[in-house]
Amino acid sequence: VEQVPLVTITTDFGTADGYVGTMKGVILSIAGDARLVDISHEIAPQNVRQAAYVLYTAYPFFPPHTVHLVVVDPGVGSARRPIALCTPAGCFVGPDNGVFSYVIAREPVEAMVELADPRYRLPQVSHTFHGRDIFAPAAAHLAAGVPITALGPPVPDPITFPPPRLEVAAGSIAGEILHADHFGNVITSIGQLVWSGDDLSLEPAFPEAGGTRRERASEAHQTGGGGAVRFQASKATVVVAGRDVCGLHRTYAQVEPGQVLALVGSEGHLEIAVREGSAAQRLGLQPGDLVTLRWR
Amino acid sequence: VEQVPLVTITTDFGTADGYVGTMKGVILSIAGDARLVDISHEIAPQNVRQAAYVLYTAYPFFPPHTVHLVVVDPGVGSARRPIALCTPAGCFVGPDNGVFSYVIAREPVEAMVELADPRYRLPQVSHTFHGRDIFAPAAAHLAAGVPITALGPPVPDPITFPPPRLEVAAGSIAGEILHADHFGNVITSIGQLVWSGDDLSLEPAFPEAGGTRRERASEAHQTGGGGAVRFQASKATVVVAGRDVCGLHRTYAQVEPGQVLALVGSEGHLEIAVREGSAAQRLGLQPGDLVTLRWR
Amino acid sequence: VEQVPLVTITTDFGTADGYVGTMKGVILSIAGDARLVDISHEIAPQNVRQAAYVLYTAYPFFPPHTVHLVVVDPGVGSARRPIALCTPAGCFVGPDNGVFSYVIAREPVEAMVELADPRYRLPQVSHTFHGRDIFAPAAAHLAAGVPITALGPPVPDPITFPPPRLEVAAGSIAGEILHADHFGNVITSIGQLVWSGDDLSLEPAFPEAGGTRRERASEAHQTGGGGAVRFQASKATVVVAGRDVCGLHRTYAQVEPGQVLALVGSEGHLEIAVREGSAAQRLGLQPGDLVTLRWR
Repeated sequence: VEQVPLVTITTDFGTADGYVGTMKGVILSIAGDARLVDISHEIAPQNVRQAAYVLYTAYPFFPPHTVHLVVVDPGVGSARRPIALCTPAGCFVGPDNGVFSYVIAREPVEAMVELADPRYRLPQVSHTFHGRDIFAPAAAHLAAGVPITALGPPVPDPITFPPPRLEVAAGSIAGEILHADHFGNVITSIGQLVWSGDDLSLEPAFPEAGGTRRERASEAHQTGGGGAVRFQASKATVVVAGRDVCGLHRTYAQVEPGQVLALVGSEGHLEIAVREGSAAQRLGLQPGDLVTLRWR
Repeated sequence: VEQVPLVTITTDFGTADGYVGTMKGVILSIAGDARLVDISHEIAPQNVRQAAYVLYTAYPFFPPHTVHLVVVDPGVGSARRPIALCTPAGCFVGPDNGVFSYVIAREPVEAMVELADPRYRLPQVSHTFHGRDIFAPAAAHLAAGVPITALGPPVPDPITFPPPRLEVAAGSIAGEILHADHFGNVITSIGQLVWSGDDLSLEPAFPEAGGTRRERASEAHQTGGGGAVRFQASKATVVVAGRDVCGLHRTYAQVEPGQVLALVGSEGHLEIAVREGSAAQRLGLQPGDLVTLRWR
Repeated sequence: VEQVPLVTITTDFGTADGYVGTMKGVILSIAGDARLVDISHEIAPQNVRQAAYVLYTAYPFFPPHTVHLVVVDPGVGSARRPIALCTPAGCFVGPDNGVFSYVIAREPVEAMVELADPRYRLPQVSHTFHGRDIFAPAAAHLAAGVPITALGPPVPDPITFPPPRLEVAAGSIAGEILHADHFGNVITSIGQLVWSGDDLSLEPAFPEAGGTRRERASEAHQTGGGGAVRFQASKATVVVAGRDVCGLHRTYAQVEPGQVLALVGSEGHLEIAVREGSAAQRLGLQPGDLVTLRWR
């Protein structure tokens, strides 16, 4: 596999205005042979947490030399720092507003810098479009081989937000809804769930917080008399707003079209779905809503 | 023309969630120099027939070494087979659910296999995202030069759905609406219509069924005393729900803005349009509705 | 930087139907190594002025060897000419309907031709999809190195529309709304505004008309006793429909979330915004509405 510069782009810009195309023009003016891949441009305006989630689902599937450019930037023009960071799973460029929280929680950070060197910005920097003037040039230079340390001084204290709710007790795990996708499938913070035979076990998705939680989890399990969190899938029920909404299955095809089910989604998180329908709409669920997985 | 690996992608995933980007990451991890082209990600959820139609309009315009990846897959996780097929007009990868019906009807199939060999899947296959775990890797390997027969055993009996309605009688052709596009232009199964002077003649779009139909057509014409189906365009009228809605023109510009017209669309099918407006909205038309083209 | 053929695409086709993908197939069948970048496919149907604006914001950021393909073509199938033009800032391919007005106003045109030579079209040209049959092939051949003069005879008289309103008086500039973007930011024709310390000065965006206007501007200023149009930003107010709506700031971050402000947008035009909200919605503004910037 030849190693062409590869840049992914995630924004809340939509695709109607030409803003994304403009950033691509900037990148291709600097790294003429770069390959560009859109992750999403339909992040809800200024929704940094949604961008962090979408990035988390996609970046692990790209080659490690990929530069992931993320511009969801409510603080553009304020004192918030523009940053870049590199990990063994790829480099990341964007505003220092928490959008890389899940990356930082999961990957060892090799270097993190502020995008301060004017040689790696456009000659004129606007007050409103740092995606074009600061972030796209930095991503292009990184992808083209400029070492990250050339872009500016180290950032020892990036902004990160706390990991999403994940509380393990005897016989239950409580979490929250992270995302409702295009199909109306609702993805929760209860993950990652791993099948082993007919049982599921929990390996918390965001290890930084996982430490504490794993302890809490085993404490809980001590009450129940166990070690790691592990339970029989067929005995589990999903509870939302005090109501049992469905059991846990392996695939959509195990229920009839129109029926509600829960399953382990493609990122290993508990997901609530309606076969050939929308769970978000049917159950009125939204990001932030509390979900509990309960078993006996 | 240098022959770079070329993969097109058609899904019902939308572009908000990062699912398409994730598949592209998988493809580029396997075939680093692949060129990727989006056909559509706005197929209505689980609408296999719409995907088949959109693919049919696009694939003939790509180089023959292209791999067309289609993931509209209501049966993900069930027993439906993942397949690949190669024809002189390109290779195709996706679920065995009829989505390649129009391709199979129009192109000689050189090989068709089930995507069974685990070497050409991701190491872990989820129950809900075969686009990422099975189909994208297969498309990438095919595009990179792996022979189709390496991917798995032959499939002699793919699922196909019957071709859309196309019934020729003396002085009329009956069909159905296949698709309403972004502009509200309504494309019917009455095709392919070919201009010759001021006349139009019919060459059924899907030859498998075309055999029967051509016979029926000439039978009908025998009633009228003719050979192939051929009629004078200026004498033709489009009838929907028992009502004459418009005559047949060559271009939008032949009527005033806001007026309803029919013409031979860019794929050679009868199309109902409103100049600078939406025929789907104005006439309340939907896929599946019956349309008749009548002449004297 | 290696010079790979680079083609951008701007249409009103949407992305659901496969029309854009089909054009890409045509381009890659002719120029197999071309790089393709989408600018926008969500131009409002047949809205030539919006396409002209979006193109104007994007093309200057692409390498000069880029071919910009624009297909917003209400006159498809009529006598309107298909054209191509080259400038030091890139080449442009599309219908002769005014969509290149802003390019022609800003860049010296080196050559402009009608796309008449059938060798650079698809063998069969439909009456409804010149994007596929005429424009995409022309863009591909140009990008692959065919000289523009080979494509057809010179066009000495392209259609252009008058530049948007920009009227300078003593103590005010009147303009109109050009575009409301994805965020609800409203961009006006009052530009380009350039900061110098705490002052702003005006350099009309479209020089052809700028001549007259600059004169009018200095005339106006002679009344006020000055030379070029220059004013203190902190004294300026934006007036819409006779009402003062906001003052002028440097960045979104200078006001509270939810507050209305004006600023100099990323293309140098006066922009009305709501921090983390939609000005278009809040103030009920639309393209074509009159906006005045007033100072003492």
